[in-house]
Amino acid sequence: MSCPSTQHLKPHPALAGLETQIDGLREVGAMLWQRGWSVGTSSNYSVVINRDPLELLITASGKDKGRLGRTDFVRVNASGKPTSDGQPKSSAETLLHVVAAQQPGVGAVLHTHSVWSTLLSDYFYPQGGFEVSGYEMLKGLEGIATHETTAWVEIFDNTQNIPVLADQVAGRMNDAADPLQYGYLIRRHGLYTWGRDLDEARRHIEIFEFLFECVARRMVLTGELKNNGIV
Amino acid sequence: MSCPSTQHLKPHPALAGLETQIDGLREVGAMLWQRGWSVGTSSNYSVVINRDPLELLITASGKDKGRLGRTDFVRVNASGKPTSDGQPKSSAETLLHVVAAQQPGVGAVLHTHSVWSTLLSDYFYPQGGFEVSGYEMLKGLEGIATHETTAWVEIFDNTQNIPVLADQVAGRMNDAADPLQYGYLIRRHGLYTWGRDLDEARRHIEIFEFLFECVARRMVLTGELKNNGIV
Amino acid sequence: MSCPSTQHLKPHPALAGLETQIDGLREVGAMLWQRGWSVGTSSNYSVVINRDPLELLITASGKDKGRLGRTDFVRVNASGKPTSDGQPKSSAETLLHVVAAQQPGVGAVLHTHSVWSTLLSDYFYPQGGFEVSGYEMLKGLEGIATHETTAWVEIFDNTQNIPVLADQVAGRMNDAADPLQYGYLIRRHGLYTWGRDLDEARRHIEIFEFLFECVARRMVLTGELKNNGIV
Amino acid sequence: MSCPSTQHLKPHPALAGLETQIDGLREVGAMLWQRGWSVGTSSNYSVVINRDPLELLITASGKDKGRLGRTDFVRVNASGKPTSDGQPKSSAETLLHVVAAQQPGVGAVLHTHSVWSTLLSDYFYPQGGFEVSGYEMLKGLEGIATHETTAWVEIFDNTQNIPVLADQVAGRMNDAADPLQYGYLIRRHGLYTWGRDLDEARRHIEIFEFLFECVARRMVLTGELKNNGIV
Repeated sequence: MSCPSTQHLKPHPALAGLETQIDGLREVGAMLWQRGWSVGTSSNYSVVINRDPLELLITASGKDKGRLGRTDFVRVNASGKPTSDGQPKSSAETLLHVVAAQQPGVGAVLHTHSVWSTLLSDYFYPQGGFEVSGYEMLKGLEGIATHETTAWVEIFDNTQNIPVLADQVAGRMNDAADPLQYGYLIRRHGLYTWGRDLDEARRHIEIFEFLFECVARRMVLTGELKNNGIV
Repeated sequence: MSCPSTQHLKPHPALAGLETQIDGLREVGAMLWQRGWSVGTSSNYSVVINRDPLELLITASGKDKGRLGRTDFVRVNASGKPTSDGQPKSSAETLLHVVAAQQPGVGAVLHTHSVWSTLLSDYFYPQGGFEVSGYEMLKGLEGIATHETTAWVEIFDNTQNIPVLADQVAGRMNDAADPLQYGYLIRRHGLYTWGRDLDEARRHIEIFEFLFECVARRMVLTGELKNNGIV
Repeated sequence: MSCPSTQHLKPHPALAGLETQIDGLREVGAMLWQRGWSVGTSSNYSVVINRDPLELLITASGKDKGRLGRTDFVRVNASGKPTSDGQPKSSAETLLHVVAAQQPGVGAVLHTHSVWSTLLSDYFYPQGGFEVSGYEMLKGLEGIATHETTAWVEIFDNTQNIPVLADQVAGRMNDAADPLQYGYLIRRHGLYTWGRDLDEARRHIEIFEFLFECVARRMVLTGELKNNGIV
Repeated sequence: MSCPSTQHLKPHPALAGLETQIDGLREVGAMLWQRGWSVGTSSNYSVVINRDPLELLITASGKDKGRLGRTDFVRVNASGKPTSDGQPKSSAETLLHVVAAQQPGVGAVLHTHSVWSTLLSDYFYPQGGFEVSGYEMLKGLEGIATHETTAWVEIFDNTQNIPVLADQVAGRMNDAADPLQYGYLIRRHGLYTWGRDLDEARRHIEIFEFLFECVARRMVLTGELKNNGIV
């Protein structure tokens, strides 16, 4: 990871003491870009750095995720606003990070844009989501102990009105009867997932992407246009 | 391979003197993760470190295989139990490693989760397996000297009851009339293969994955939903 | 990036002082080759080094883009000719770089050859291009602020007569009613795109390639031979 | 490229002075293995080190091509035999390298095993080969100056009788009326190609693999089971 153009910049004082978390996010970015899941300056990543009041360290808007520098981050509060002036602009989707981070036990939130998640989020949008069922890899989602599990991947319509989308997502997360878990897709856009810490969120990305590729390639391989789930 | 979070941990005394084997498995893990065959902390790997009584060095449960640290290993006995207290938990599938390692001439066992192996293990499960026939790459399986060979890839149903599965697999390995060879698939789960040493087991992974991709892409390319094997 | 065979060569005096731009193009080349978009010595890249009169730094003809050395570049003028004698031959397609660089605000031009761009440029050639519509990743093209956008990807027929093609492209770029924007394809050949600087051009490559893969894989996945655009 | 297990071995005296050529082949091997075209110890590579009498430096049999050590090579003569005793066994296919190297102007020969070449060599075998036509990337084959070219990719049946196959190939190379050029496929096995030097042979591998992927993916994308060539 070489970022010569930013090495001489001095990180904003709001980032002081956060070097470990910053470097963790930079390493995740390099990995996700390499896999092709965060190309073209897409995606954004965050970790919780304060719980009460909630504060997140989040990627600044429009940065190349494969080459994040130490200054390419913003410290934001529970309203998604910078905690102090003079920081770079945070991602337009910061509120989606806040909403996830407000859930109990969430320490990191990752958002990526892969080809398979884009295609499945479009294909299954009319039915609101799709089931992934019976795969051993489901056990990589925290708390799942058997492949005899069905995970529902919910799909929200895409919008540039992030506050409205954040409200919708929060509603589903706080739905006591059937809460949204692990992650969700935005139509023709990408995946949001999270975890207790950055390693768990990263694992969830890898698990979801593996499962998405299985679901999509299975459709091609078997000639079935429908997933074996609810369709 | 950078593992800053584990570098300060001291390996358990049971691992003393095994640094070469540990680093060999760490390098294999980094490679298999890079290929996308061991993502999301899936997979587990082992080498035989004592033959009589049988002892294995095996990956600890739930570790990121692309970033294994020196402490992410367990020394287990022929019952799949740690040889001494205080070691990390070994993989839930340790007994499947033991069963393979008990075969004559086996020095290393690798288990991976690829997309193609997951899909083929599902597609061909109803017929118990599938044939791979006529490919030059079959010669990469130890002891095969011509492409005019048919390898049978057996598929076991997935289960969380590993002792029962281990018995099934052992039964097929010890079937004098038609012993299971080289490797096998678990349905919607992944591949087990082995070799005389870690290099041979690693070669077998590469050979199987290449052949699986050929079988699956051939089905897509030709529009035949059935493999040219027994179906 | 190791280029032992060229390290001992002395760059031509015309390249003096351009080391930063040269190394930037070398790094982009290594990345694009790694992705498989610039293999086999295909592709060519340029940056504007003087605006008035226009001068470009461009890759020399026939070099391996994954291993560009410091001497593998040429300084050319607005006619696509070397600014001084003794420089290596520039790409046969230099005039296509000049035409793009003559547009206001263009600082870098990248041309790549990917499998997906090759296939789509062939498939949609009879209708002159194709639409890409509704994807969040469209926002990675400079100036696009919403996924509710339709980008038209125009396709020119391939030819070895570059001056004629350059005139055609220039005509479409300068078409006041409906100017060609962001990039275009040449049939069975590849992609041209550009940006304010090298980082923006590189981002546009990543965005286009992501979108091309989406369009093509969607056709395979859904079984629709026609894109959801104009066809 | 780390090869700790072989670093302490002393290269055979027959390899003295060939370090540059050896390291060139090691670098090519690491690249081809990374692309997935030389996995499982498949493939073999050679360069001409003496023209009269003909001598080749060729990879030893059964080595991991991603991790070639300095001792993993053999010096062979025009009969494909080691020039002196005590060297490792050369590839079983050494005579196919000799046959190509005997052509005028050939300085390096590369043989790889990719998934796409395996599949196309099987699919088009009944008609003896296939045409690749109209792609700009054809210009990467030495001496081709326009995309308006049709390259014939000939396919030989696979066999373990290499002397017989070598005679067949030599016959086609020396066919004055219609000589085999650039490379050929062996059914369900892989690609042979060559060049004036190692860089040109490597370029030819990249060009052929790109074109094979185009031909195969085009068949999947368009739903045509037949290539647009002669079928």
